[in-house]
Amino acid sequence: MKLAFVGGTGPEGLGLAMRFALAGHEVAIGSRSTERGEEGAAKVCEAVSAAKATGGANADIVGAADVVFLTFPYSGQAATLQTLGSALDGKLVCNVVAPLEFQQGVGAVALNVAGNSALQESMAQLPNSRVVSAFQNMSAEELQHLDHPIEADVLVCGRDAEAKAVVIGLANDIKGVRGIDAGGPSQSRYVEMLTSLLINLNRKHKTQTAVRIVGI
Amino acid sequence: MKLAFVGGTGPEGLGLAMRFALAGHEVAIGSRSTERGEEGAAKVCEAVSAAKATGGANADIVGAADVVFLTFPYSGQAATLQTLGSALDGKLVCNVVAPLEFQQGVGAVALNVAGNSALQESMAQLPNSRVVSAFQNMSAEELQHLDHPIEADVLVCGRDAEAKAVVIGLANDIKGVRGIDAGGPSQSRYVEMLTSLLINLNRKHKTQTAVRIVGI
Repeated sequence: MKLAFVGGTGPEGLGLAMRFALAGHEVAIGSRSTERGEEGAAKVCEAVSAAKATGGANADIVGAADVVFLTFPYSGQAATLQTLGSALDGKLVCNVVAPLEFQQGVGAVALNVAGNSALQESMAQLPNSRVVSAFQNMSAEELQHLDHPIEADVLVCGRDAEAKAVVIGLANDIKGVRGIDAGGPSQSRYVEMLTSLLINLNRKHKTQTAVRIVGI
Repeated sequence: MKLAFVGGTGPEGLGLAMRFALAGHEVAIGSRSTERGEEGAAKVCEAVSAAKATGGANADIVGAADVVFLTFPYSGQAATLQTLGSALDGKLVCNVVAPLEFQQGVGAVALNVAGNSALQESMAQLPNSRVVSAFQNMSAEELQHLDHPIEADVLVCGRDAEAKAVVIGLANDIKGVRGIDAGGPSQSRYVEMLTSLLINLNRKHKTQTAVRIVGI
């Protein structure tokens, strides 16, 4: 499949793109600047020799994509989606955003957002897209360590069952990862908040954590 | 150890008491009514033949306990702790409460509580106790199915490292369960919210789920 990463030059976007390139998918790295997008694609090609990776401006990479990943900080979500405008109409969009901030002495703190979750806010802003959420809990560091086997479940939330099935399939394409249908849009809040818990566990236990759901 | 369960006649309290009785601990089942507490103890003895279980009114069972578990719905937390008053002074208290409500068509919905988490609210109400939180994510149904092996991590949050170590040890006493130090009081909110996610996963996938943290 052709996968585009809006804001894909950050560690989470690059890590996911590398893992998907390794699984044989075509990846396109987007940035606000064409050059930084191209630099991101070069990093993917450096890490994965067989990668089919291109880069460019966010608005330019989404048109050809089968799935568009949103891989930027929450603070940029509303403005970035506003800027992309109708470019995402009809697209399958996978929101990877977890609203959080870092507070001294506490660590990651999940934010209460007006629309309940980053997923639900992006759904409201993209009424003509098929939006789901997934991959927020995956450690960007682990994703980029391609020699480390990953062991993690990816909880996929959204309203559109077919879109969720596509993203669950993509999760399963990453070795060691299992995609799980985690239910409707309102569930995304709990999955997004889990990211803060895992980040703080990482710091406390000096490791990289992930979550497995037992019983499914 | 001597373990007391305030509000222990509900499924979570009974399930935990049964598992701890199976591990050789003495358990005391508390209720607002002495009789219902005694009935709860009888259920534990029926399920675990070697159980050392007693029952009684909440206020009467906490005095002799090494660890007091809070196993009632969030709606009763403030009033129950108010009623117990100074009976919990100096005690190690393990809060099992997850603030949530059930909404038709949605399932479990985690509540935003004024004090950030049930744990932090109970800490504020019990300044002379050593309060931690744990076990909110364990399925009451699974706990009571004593022939089912449990596979789950228990995330323990709180300020008092020694108190957390005691509760982590108790978690480890349940076969298949691993206790993890999940950090300070502010982390409890994410752990409490995880309960709603797991309840909704149970319903969607017609199973009983639990969580494992990979990487620790």
